[in-house]
Formats: sequence, structure tokens, C-alpha cells
Amino acid sequence: MRAHALAAEFPTATLDTPALEAARLLAERDLPGLILVDDAGLPITILPGTQVLRLAVPTYCREDPALARVVDEAHADLFLRQLGGRTVRECLPEQQRELPVADTQATVLELAALMARTRSPLVAIVDDGRLVGAVTLQALLDRALAL
Amino acid sequence: MRAHALAAEFPTATLDTPALEAARLLAERDLPGLILVDDAGLPITILPGTQVLRLAVPTYCREDPALARVVDEAHADLFLRQLGGRTVRECLPEQQRELPVADTQATVLELAALMARTRSPLVAIVDDGRLVGAVTLQALLDRALAL
Repeated sequence: MRAHALAAEFPTATLDTPALEAARLLAERDLPGLILVDDAGLPITILPGTQVLRLAVPTYCREDPALARVVDEAHADLFLRQLGGRTVRECLPEQQRELPVADTQATVLELAALMARTRSPLVAIVDDGRLVGAVTLQALLDRALAL
Repeated sequence: MRAHALAAEFPTATLDTPALEAARLLAERDLPGLILVDDAGLPITILPGTQVLRLAVPTYCREDPALARVVDEAHADLFLRQLGGRTVRECLPEQQRELPVADTQATVLELAALMARTRSPLVAIVDDGRLVGAVTLQALLDRALAL
């Protein structure tokens, strides 16, 4: 089994996608993350769902969770409003880490090794420089357990 | 909205749960991770799904993905067999990081801050030392976007 057989269509976003729209995509389609692509449609990076939250949480709360408690419940409920007007570009971590991207010929073992090393439950699959889809941890486990 | 209203029952495992059973739970119930509990039922840590793969991938493949390619496709397909006889205990990272655990009174903002900081799409919710369930990134986004 190779990556092309496991890859499924997967939603993408660009650096200019509104962060709120990214949050909606993640929630509506129950995704572990989003693939970010450049203008040519090539994957730039994978944005984990938790990193969209990062942008919505004021810095002082992020560093000290006890400070998040001083925000009253009614305001806390509306924390996603912080995303208003901001884009995915601002959600990216400062340091670029190894990208979970593989080609269509990658074996199940290669995909597993990549997910384990990058701690990404999502690998973008490219063919000759073109994004063809993604393999999720779910898809990988489902197929590997069926054998 | 507070954590008790968002928390849902969530599967747990112990350090002695077979790693293969953990992989099955992750796949069948489509989970981002598992809550590991001690004999008293208290959360010890959250095991991300990708870390179960870690145990199934030979060390040399993990460090150098190119080496994973030398394993032929038929053998690569069966990589999960490496989990045979091993337990969740062996999947844990060496370094213990901050635990994504909150109490039932945590606000949505506190949960978001915790998910962002620990990069965990799953927070275990405890009440008076007892595990009552978990809040997932999905549940958090669903509710916050509905407001």
C-alpha cells in the first residue's frame, strides 16, 4: 500500500485565509489541521488546529493559565472574536519545523515514521510538485489494522 | 460556559494496556489521543495518537525517513505488528511535559489557552481528583463558533 492509495481530498487554506474561517473549517469538517498552500497550490506547512486557538487567546493567558481565569465566563465564551480580521499567517509558529509532506510512492511505514517524528496526525501528499491530498492518522491506522 | 458542560465521556487506557489495543481504540473511535489513567483512575498523561505509531516504527526509520523506503511495501504494510506484546508504557515520551488537564470550572478561554500551550487537541477534565471526561478541540470550536 502506498500513499496514493491512502490519500484523500483535504481542505486547504492560504496565508491570507481569515483565521475565523480556518476555525470554521476545522470544526465543520472535524479536521486535525489544515494544509496551507501557496499561490501555486503547493503545501507550505500544516497548521495544527490547536495553533488557530493560539491566536485567539491573549498572550498573558497563554503564558499563565491562571490569568485566563480572571476573564469572566461571558467574555471567555466569546474568545474567538479575537480572531476577527486576522489571518492564518499570524497563526504560524515562528520556527518552521520539518514538514509532514510525502510523495505518492511513500509506503505506510514511511508515512507512520513521518507522523511519529513530526507529531503530525496529517501528512500532505504531493505528486510532481502538485498537492494530491492528505493521509490522516485515522486512515493510516484503519488500513494498517485491517491487515 | 464551563468545562463541565463541554466535557464528554472519553476512552481511557492504562500503562499496561497493549499498544495494539490503544491503536484500535484510536482508529475505531476516531480519537486524537487517549487519556492514560493510573490504578485510581486519575489521569497520568495524554497519549497523542502519533506516539503510538512511534513504537511501531523501527528506530532507524524514525530518525531517517529515507531508510523507511528500503523496507519493501509488503513488509511496510505490516508495520503495526511491531506493537505485538508491547504496552502503552513504552509509547510515552521520555520527558513529561505540562499535562492538558483542567477542572470542571475552567472557562472556554482557559481550555483554549491550555490546548494552545500544550498543543493538545484534548484536555482531560477532573473534578475533585476524579476524571469526569474530556473536552476536544472539536467540541470547543463547535460551541465557541455557535455563539
